[in-house]
Amino acid sequence: MISVSEALKLILEGSSALPSQIIPVENAQSFALVNDVKSDRPLPPFDRVAMDGFAVKSEDFTSETMEFKIAGQVQTGVSSKLVVGPGEAIRIMTGAPCPEGADAVVKIENATIKGKTVVLKEENMKPGLNIATKGEDTEAGKTLIRAGTPLTTAGIAVCASVGLPKVEVYQKPKIKIISTGTEIISPSESPLAHQIRDCNSFSLRSMSRSNILESRFLGIGEDDKKVLAAMIREGLESEILLLSGGVSMGEFDHIPQLLSENGVKNLFHHVRVKPGKPIWFGKTEKGTYVFGLPGNPVSVQTCYRIFVEPLIRKLSGYANPRHRFIKLPLSEQVNSKSNRDHYMPGKLVITEKETLLEPIHIRGSGDFSNFEPSQGLFLFPAEEKQLEAGTPVDFLPWREIW
Amino acid sequence: MISVSEALKLILEGSSALPSQIIPVENAQSFALVNDVKSDRPLPPFDRVAMDGFAVKSEDFTSETMEFKIAGQVQTGVSSKLVVGPGEAIRIMTGAPCPEGADAVVKIENATIKGKTVVLKEENMKPGLNIATKGEDTEAGKTLIRAGTPLTTAGIAVCASVGLPKVEVYQKPKIKIISTGTEIISPSESPLAHQIRDCNSFSLRSMSRSNILESRFLGIGEDDKKVLAAMIREGLESEILLLSGGVSMGEFDHIPQLLSENGVKNLFHHVRVKPGKPIWFGKTEKGTYVFGLPGNPVSVQTCYRIFVEPLIRKLSGYANPRHRFIKLPLSEQVNSKSNRDHYMPGKLVITEKETLLEPIHIRGSGDFSNFEPSQGLFLFPAEEKQLEAGTPVDFLPWREIW
Repeated sequence: MISVSEALKLILEGSSALPSQIIPVENAQSFALVNDVKSDRPLPPFDRVAMDGFAVKSEDFTSETMEFKIAGQVQTGVSSKLVVGPGEAIRIMTGAPCPEGADAVVKIENATIKGKTVVLKEENMKPGLNIATKGEDTEAGKTLIRAGTPLTTAGIAVCASVGLPKVEVYQKPKIKIISTGTEIISPSESPLAHQIRDCNSFSLRSMSRSNILESRFLGIGEDDKKVLAAMIREGLESEILLLSGGVSMGEFDHIPQLLSENGVKNLFHHVRVKPGKPIWFGKTEKGTYVFGLPGNPVSVQTCYRIFVEPLIRKLSGYANPRHRFIKLPLSEQVNSKSNRDHYMPGKLVITEKETLLEPIHIRGSGDFSNFEPSQGLFLFPAEEKQLEAGTPVDFLPWREIW
Repeated sequence: MISVSEALKLILEGSSALPSQIIPVENAQSFALVNDVKSDRPLPPFDRVAMDGFAVKSEDFTSETMEFKIAGQVQTGVSSKLVVGPGEAIRIMTGAPCPEGADAVVKIENATIKGKTVVLKEENMKPGLNIATKGEDTEAGKTLIRAGTPLTTAGIAVCASVGLPKVEVYQKPKIKIISTGTEIISPSESPLAHQIRDCNSFSLRSMSRSNILESRFLGIGEDDKKVLAAMIREGLESEILLLSGGVSMGEFDHIPQLLSENGVKNLFHHVRVKPGKPIWFGKTEKGTYVFGLPGNPVSVQTCYRIFVEPLIRKLSGYANPRHRFIKLPLSEQVNSKSNRDHYMPGKLVITEKETLLEPIHIRGSGDFSNFEPSQGLFLFPAEEKQLEAGTPVDFLPWREIW
């Protein structure tokens, strides 16, 4: 049985970014850039006034309070030829270019206007006061965002600012989902005593939506091989096919066989991970990736996060497809008898001094109701048996908690 | 000038949840529940087998290794009348109900089948072994998720599991967006020296999308009062109108006046916050909320997170509309001369032992390009002048970093 890191290596080394597409930048959140984004001009593009007030020559301030002749005003967004001469002040708005001749701005709160003159008070006069100098944030041609970076809100704002209303980004995988298991019925049906309602197709669709992906649920696969095979063939018409259930050791778990018959080459089956040990991963020649996820709700949600998301990020062209776990100290002692890497649910305890991680005790990977209040997963490493309170652990929050 | 907490109090006390709607649970991520979600039956609903293997009577194990007669098999999802008698074992699959008469399951890995009998080895035999007892996770009728909780992936899975293919949730606000400023042009146009491309409408749309909200950009408002007034009236046909620019102290900043003329009552203007001091907030009698956000890109993104998001959550029926800041220690000393609460950009530094917060140095609220790599905002409180390395600060991550 392989380890989690061996499994991730197989997933990530065997996959590469999908082709690119050009899309409006306002729709590009979480899409990774194909090219570096560079500034097309210096930022700010001119000496920009940072406060409403009066533009002056700093050298005119021979004392803290001085009187100036008001020589005009410059409105933001209007080109102006006004020049500030000695002893003169020009009324100016935030965001306007600083007029020629001036090298400082006194804010309006420090101005007393007396008809055609203004008395300005400034304790800290110096050249450049309240002016953002042309190019001080960024010179022209500088790389602002590197290729392979997924666009965030701030990144989208940068693209718009440098004149990129459209951006070239990597396509994202489309996901198809099948739930399997004779005991599984739709939530809109009434269950018999031995039946369980499908929830995995719902959690998988929800997680795909968090990744800003298109996903489609193909239905609940019956144990009829022919029907299931047809569903699988439909599922393979996408970049990623996710199946839940049907990969543990039972005689009736014929999913791996059906996948193999339909051209999916198995790359691993079983990983030293808890929950999710029976996870199955394969790939078709055409490049469709298939995960057979164990059927328990907690396993499905955990395996998606640990194994499926890094693949999604790799296919989406992310330069760093792996997750960013943060280190947080445990709020209490935790034990695990497992000799597999154990991803346990936890929640944050925020004190005046620090953020602790409190383990959430669930009764196994079927116990989804006690799993619901969790705020993420932390890793209890395979080689440990006991972690004391205060031990720093790797924590991966659910995106939805903020 | 009011403080951030006074501003948030005005925002949250003056607003209440929108009407409810019934939507498919698979579309309900981030929508808040109107009612508690309760279990409709015990969970698990029957004594559920947790491993593929053989169901036996635990009392039959008088030594570690015992031989049993194979009395049949029970397939998951199929109702069965099979009963396990003394000395008998029934082949069983994960997820199936435990057959009558049996009280333990030996996993298949510990079984050696010899025709009609099976030799089972189990060091830790006890009643209940590898069986999830009916109701052990949750009794019937128990509240699993409280009203006012926004649905997460795990919550959606719970709803599906208890037979809620549709859920009653609060509606979410629709957002309209106007950028203002004579100097602002569209990113698809070529800027003159004194012009700046619009990026705020892009960041506001992106953040609305992160909140899973409908938003619509109405355009760039010119300084022509009549045109702007018409845009504002269109913007007021929504639950939240966001304007960027036009609220600082300049003579040409006539937005507050136009809002007032169109029935928006001002609730505050200026908050002791950095960036974002000139922020303007008001409300119409009909219940449209209006934010006038300062025009700098960093101010817009910060103010949306600090002031707009809590309102969105309140209107969306969240029981806890306020943000969850986590405490993390600073990686280095930080100074601030401001006497306002200062929200500074930061990023995570993850070591073997802890997670530190590294301040990102930007040159003011126009410096969006250096803001882009930030992973969230931390609070430098108004009353402090210097925070030493190691000081725990309140940090609010961007949702997109995970």
